[in-house]
Amino acid sequence: MASRQHSFEVFRDVAPLRKMRRQLLLSNRTVGLVPTMGALHEGHLSLMRQAAADNTDVFVSIYVNPTQFGVNEDLASYPRTWDSDVAKIEQLNEELSRQGEKYGRVTAILAPTSKVMYPTLPPSSEVDGDGSFVTITPISKKLEGASRPVFFRGVATVCMKLFNIVCADRAYFGQKDVQQTVVIKRMVKDFHIPTEIKIGATVRENDGLAMSSRNVYLGSRRRAVGLVLYNALKAAEDAYLSGKNNRNEILDAANRMTQKVLGEQQALKPTERALYEVDYISLADPDTLDELEVVDPSRGAILSGAIKMAPLEVSNPGEDCGLGDGKVPVRLIDNLILTPRV
Amino acid sequence: MASRQHSFEVFRDVAPLRKMRRQLLLSNRTVGLVPTMGALHEGHLSLMRQAAADNTDVFVSIYVNPTQFGVNEDLASYPRTWDSDVAKIEQLNEELSRQGEKYGRVTAILAPTSKVMYPTLPPSSEVDGDGSFVTITPISKKLEGASRPVFFRGVATVCMKLFNIVCADRAYFGQKDVQQTVVIKRMVKDFHIPTEIKIGATVRENDGLAMSSRNVYLGSRRRAVGLVLYNALKAAEDAYLSGKNNRNEILDAANRMTQKVLGEQQALKPTERALYEVDYISLADPDTLDELEVVDPSRGAILSGAIKMAPLEVSNPGEDCGLGDGKVPVRLIDNLILTPRV
Repeated sequence: MASRQHSFEVFRDVAPLRKMRRQLLLSNRTVGLVPTMGALHEGHLSLMRQAAADNTDVFVSIYVNPTQFGVNEDLASYPRTWDSDVAKIEQLNEELSRQGEKYGRVTAILAPTSKVMYPTLPPSSEVDGDGSFVTITPISKKLEGASRPVFFRGVATVCMKLFNIVCADRAYFGQKDVQQTVVIKRMVKDFHIPTEIKIGATVRENDGLAMSSRNVYLGSRRRAVGLVLYNALKAAEDAYLSGKNNRNEILDAANRMTQKVLGEQQALKPTERALYEVDYISLADPDTLDELEVVDPSRGAILSGAIKMAPLEVSNPGEDCGLGDGKVPVRLIDNLILTPRV
Repeated sequence: MASRQHSFEVFRDVAPLRKMRRQLLLSNRTVGLVPTMGALHEGHLSLMRQAAADNTDVFVSIYVNPTQFGVNEDLASYPRTWDSDVAKIEQLNEELSRQGEKYGRVTAILAPTSKVMYPTLPPSSEVDGDGSFVTITPISKKLEGASRPVFFRGVATVCMKLFNIVCADRAYFGQKDVQQTVVIKRMVKDFHIPTEIKIGATVRENDGLAMSSRNVYLGSRRRAVGLVLYNALKAAEDAYLSGKNNRNEILDAANRMTQKVLGEQQALKPTERALYEVDYISLADPDTLDELEVVDPSRGAILSGAIKMAPLEVSNPGEDCGLGDGKVPVRLIDNLILTPRV
């Protein structure tokens, strides 16, 4: 089941991966797991670099997990880019070897089938669907979970499986999906999973847009306007850094920004504008994700948001509208950690 | 956190147990886990013997898990017998050492606090309560789960934690709790838990009553009448072994038995009788626990049942009424596996 045309093994099934893992354990090597859904970008690669700095062996899982997509979400259109993913990991391994023995390498990719990941039942995306699931509440019901009720059930379930399969010393998640990091850390603590969770900083484009596999659907017009989310969060962060602790004072700065930009877009012609809806802008406790009226500056807070970029109303001849010709709605999320100020 | 007054270590917390476990792994020793809620009886000891035959080290967990008791169930009255549990394990270790090197020993007891097992939230026993849970449906909703809606959520959750803490090579469960064995095997399969599940035969008293920690509440009168469940299942098994495959033909034999004995009891005086209600008698598929209209003799079936022994109406002077003076209702469960006939 393992193929060896690359600088890493590719596993489709569990047993041969376990065999390799056991050998690594007995030779005192360490494993860092980077779980992904493929469509790799610089954010994933930065997690792999971090894993290679901490471990002799980096295992990357590539699996588009159906149970974290709701019935009306974008499972079918989620980008699947195996060849370019493999090429990027090959290139990363070359980069890592140039850095000498200080860094580990990506030595395994786990790309399982759904029959391997969900052996008994077809995985359900219904809220009340049957299956074998991990649920972490109430934190899974907040923020992203409010819009996507099965999302964190799917994430926690697939990560529990991956953790059991790989038995990694450490696993790496990006700060970009901040609620995911909180849910996974809670799961690891509550279930005594013997894997340490490490969080890598959000990797951004030059203008600040957080990297995301879904950005390929934006096109240049929506991409430029979508930056409003990051700018709104930055404005709120500025308010906190200038000494404000009250919810209204912090979030007003963000809300003013999203309203101003939306107003500007609405005043443009359909051939020129990109419209969006703000899903939420949240100021929440870092552990419980409860919304905060006042930030305790000794604890800090999580500032996060989501906006839905609507399909382009009219596209122009020759315009870069992104994958799907600007017709795919794109939900963008971003966050900033307000670190303790005292 | 570990104490060493015994022939085994006693752990209240996870980190020191992990340290011992890692040493065992690196010395090529194997660990068999026997999860219990204490109140040890011969059924538990037989699982430990089986574990000692398969592994160099047996880890016994003793933890009365609150999340598997519903809000109106017997969590408070569940027997807690630490000193006699420890003495029984000491005695077992002496027995095992007399058998020489062929057998392992109980080398660790894990007796965690609830704060260790449920680190963040007070564990909920409400059906819709919040927490970090494993759910295995639809099989957890059937049979015992129909009467006890949070039971298997609690069992799966605590076993996932124990499996992660101990990282056992094998874990041992009694056939007596047949639905639990099906749920745990399903969980291990679906979540790729790297622990092999082994099932030990139900251990019975001389007359056939399945051993259970709750039997101490029966007293002699209810104990004698409670045997009806086993006898009813035996009657149904006889029907299957004589060639019957139809649900009605198999279950009628059991139902006639429970009705006959109940009629006999009802005819007695309140000072002499013990009354009960049949909760269910089930003929189900061995993997899905779906009720069967016809047994496929190449697959066999699970024949299982539960009865509720009512409190004694009137007790007699000097009568052995069991712990709680015969006032505690006792739910008895039992099962027989109808093995494939062809």
